[in-house]
Amino acid sequence: MTFPVGLDRVIEPAGVLPQAAWRLDARPEISADEVRISVERLNLDAASFRQLATKHGGDGAAVRAEVLEIIGTRGKMHNPVTGSGGMLIGVVDEVGPESPLPVKAGDRVATLVSLTLTPLAISDALAGWDGLSEQVPAAGHAILFGRSVVAVLPADLAPELALAVFDVCGAPALTDRIVRSYPAPATVAVLGGAGKSGSLALTAARLAGARTVGVVVSDAEREALRGAGLADHVAVADARDPVAVSSAVAAALGAPATVTVVCVDVPGCEHGAILATASGGTVIFFSMATSFPAAALGAEGLAADVTMLVGNGYVPGHAEFALDVVRRTPAVRALFESRIAAH
Amino acid sequence: MTFPVGLDRVIEPAGVLPQAAWRLDARPEISADEVRISVERLNLDAASFRQLATKHGGDGAAVRAEVLEIIGTRGKMHNPVTGSGGMLIGVVDEVGPESPLPVKAGDRVATLVSLTLTPLAISDALAGWDGLSEQVPAAGHAILFGRSVVAVLPADLAPELALAVFDVCGAPALTDRIVRSYPAPATVAVLGGAGKSGSLALTAARLAGARTVGVVVSDAEREALRGAGLADHVAVADARDPVAVSSAVAAALGAPATVTVVCVDVPGCEHGAILATASGGTVIFFSMATSFPAAALGAEGLAADVTMLVGNGYVPGHAEFALDVVRRTPAVRALFESRIAAH
Repeated sequence: MTFPVGLDRVIEPAGVLPQAAWRLDARPEISADEVRISVERLNLDAASFRQLATKHGGDGAAVRAEVLEIIGTRGKMHNPVTGSGGMLIGVVDEVGPESPLPVKAGDRVATLVSLTLTPLAISDALAGWDGLSEQVPAAGHAILFGRSVVAVLPADLAPELALAVFDVCGAPALTDRIVRSYPAPATVAVLGGAGKSGSLALTAARLAGARTVGVVVSDAEREALRGAGLADHVAVADARDPVAVSSAVAAALGAPATVTVVCVDVPGCEHGAILATASGGTVIFFSMATSFPAAALGAEGLAADVTMLVGNGYVPGHAEFALDVVRRTPAVRALFESRIAAH
Repeated sequence: MTFPVGLDRVIEPAGVLPQAAWRLDARPEISADEVRISVERLNLDAASFRQLATKHGGDGAAVRAEVLEIIGTRGKMHNPVTGSGGMLIGVVDEVGPESPLPVKAGDRVATLVSLTLTPLAISDALAGWDGLSEQVPAAGHAILFGRSVVAVLPADLAPELALAVFDVCGAPALTDRIVRSYPAPATVAVLGGAGKSGSLALTAARLAGARTVGVVVSDAEREALRGAGLADHVAVADARDPVAVSSAVAAALGAPATVTVVCVDVPGCEHGAILATASGGTVIFFSMATSFPAAALGAEGLAADVTMLVGNGYVPGHAEFALDVVRRTPAVRALFESRIAAH
């Protein structure tokens, strides 16, 4: 068996896969099954950007300098604190003769694999970025391996919109799959329901026939989510407060949720999600801030018979599924567009 | 709704559940729904003990001193580095009038909730422990909340054996459930198949009808597992080497596994488990050393459509299920007894 997963791009430590590597070789020359992309824009993972912005007290220049240093040192945008990356948009520059990816030179594409495993070099010092937003205009090149995921940008949606949707496109697809695995009607609670992955998960759950509650952190988010009409109920609670979250969900739905989806990118949401979920139900953790031991030991300590899923960012067909959700639901599209405009 | 989960035992930070707390109140006086246990023995989580032993270079006195300091500082045995704990054995001392737990004063019991959320005080300075093994003779008291899990020790098995089985009893029960959710015959790979949770998971998988491979780290472990006859195949590979693990599993089973169970308590096993699993299959992570971002981003980066489960230590009936596996499988019992004798 061969694994076309970029092993020869790993510099250190030797023998690990690119995502686990400390440092990758971002040389522009491609091998037979690789693809080189001319980079136009990076979209940093929310947890990663939040950590950097907090560390530097909102100093955009310092955030930019650290992102440049990470990429220069590691050969990829892999935040060493959060362990997360993001994705990018660009134009296909060269396709190796043995690449199985469905792209050709000149295609405008988005990479749907994490930046934490994508060889990347920056050539413009990120001069066009103020360091104040997750969306990073950039020039340089990136490499895709044979086993990768990439989507050609749709003609009917703005690239920034498609990129923002692709960034979280695993959430609606996996939510749909899990909701449909339960007898109807399921109930679904989404923690962080007003965010990007949260609003898509809420919409996918409803399209799959579920009754839904979105849990948000502020009155402003509650009004925004209510105005968009994406959830049957909206509740305000701090997702890190297990008693508050579980009480809010049970009050809105009349009982704990069949499926709880965690889309809040802050640590400490595991126990609230577990307590908010019915016995026999499922928690899907999409936040990169999730602590594995906190989830495992929390469920054990609460004697909670819930299935807990590591939110896999890859589900076959997830990109098209997410675009379809956005096309079918103008309020979701408007929510994404307003977030993009705010940056 | 009320949550009898020990909120009033949390000292700091306020408002979190006991497992997330930095410090618990281990006062011996119980409230109406609590139970106090007179402690006889602690069983430290393998990852926690390994971290302490490594840190102190095998100096048992230093390990003992640090365990005492952790318990004294935090009011619980919650390793701040690994985030893990363990469990304990003792005799029920007092049962609050409103406790729902099926125990009475004088019962010899094992707690099946983690030490990371169990208020604990030590009164003998762990004088009977040499700091060289996970099994810690101890005197003191511990507190169980209303919503907890506790098992009365069986009359037909030695307490040390029952404790060692209970410590990992979530693994065989969840493995059984997942294997039976696939059409027969499923194939199962267990990384760390010669260990406690690994050998029970292998045995449960076989009892559920699966064809199995145990992946172990050394020739000695291979001979031990082969001698016990617990797996259809045994392969030697470093679980942290994705290519080695996935190649070994595919060679043994003829294809990637339907279900891969990770029972290796070292970091870096996520990608090998993902690569070793068939599309549509499931990875169950039981190791507390599992990295959530490494698992989530790894599957995405490998374009792997696998379900990834956080190994929940609680499955209804798990303690009796695990004891039953041990009673039905003399080789597993012998393996556990030899591990206990070696300490």
